[in-house]
Amino acid sequence: MDMEKVNSMDFGEFMDVFGNVIERCPLIAAAVWSKRPFSDLGDLEKHFFAFIDALPLSGQEGVLRCHPELAGRELQWGRLTAESQREQSAAGLQNLGAAERLRLSELTAQYRARFGFPFVLAVRLSDPAAAPRELARRLRCPPAQELRTALGEVKKICHLRLADLLGEQP
Amino acid sequence: MDMEKVNSMDFGEFMDVFGNVIERCPLIAAAVWSKRPFSDLGDLEKHFFAFIDALPLSGQEGVLRCHPELAGRELQWGRLTAESQREQSAAGLQNLGAAERLRLSELTAQYRARFGFPFVLAVRLSDPAAAPRELARRLRCPPAQELRTALGEVKKICHLRLADLLGEQP
Repeated sequence: MDMEKVNSMDFGEFMDVFGNVIERCPLIAAAVWSKRPFSDLGDLEKHFFAFIDALPLSGQEGVLRCHPELAGRELQWGRLTAESQREQSAAGLQNLGAAERLRLSELTAQYRARFGFPFVLAVRLSDPAAAPRELARRLRCPPAQELRTALGEVKKICHLRLADLLGEQP
Repeated sequence: MDMEKVNSMDFGEFMDVFGNVIERCPLIAAAVWSKRPFSDLGDLEKHFFAFIDALPLSGQEGVLRCHPELAGRELQWGRLTAESQREQSAAGLQNLGAAERLRLSELTAQYRARFGFPFVLAVRLSDPAAAPRELARRLRCPPAQELRTALGEVKKICHLRLADLLGEQP
């Protein structure tokens, strides 16, 4: 799909394609629609990132809270968005043994209790063994720093999803 | 449901109950969660309204674009959110004659073409005969004024939905 095609979409088509590049935040794609036409992938993603950066703290926490738990019940029960399901499955998180799953679930619960939002990780850039290590590391970070790190992961996920949709190398 | 109950909800419960008080914008409820505890209905809705008011223009247009068309195909096909389905049905918009439906559909298309977002109206405060009259009137308003009017309708809808959920007189 090239940018000419993207710029020729009506709003409904744009939302069908890009509505979930920020997980469960269709409002953000609906806002980015105001910024068309877009020159390329970098231009398009710049508007998604700028919207997130301009949100008040509560809104940035809201974006993170719209994300599912990593390797959580929604993955086990097949209730993730199609994008998250694909990403978490491809990262091998559906095939963890019971002990690994329990360990991850304890860590994600601790993380959520500490920061007030779920642990977000661009798992396509990671591997199943790295996730609990990264979680344990980020659990010890100061909240303001961890918020920035987590939003950085949201942007990495957005970049990978956009690159997929546009058929480009990430 | 009283405020003590609301303030004792975990995030998932809060989203199940309040996730759609701003139509198809769960991000806003997820952000308002940062502001708990809430003292009463007025306090809770104040945070929803403040979030909308603080959005950049593109975000406010985005909120409006997340709304369905009035008496549109989604109503006919039963694809609205439960809240919108109830509101539009109760306002008698499901029982319009073919001529009235065609007239409304022409006007809503003109409105969307002029302003770039769908016509939003708190139909519970209106009646089927008033909708096309109001639409024809607002179609002639300057865009900046109409954006404010439309966001005012979003807030009226939010107020009515919150009052319903909390079992209070609107």
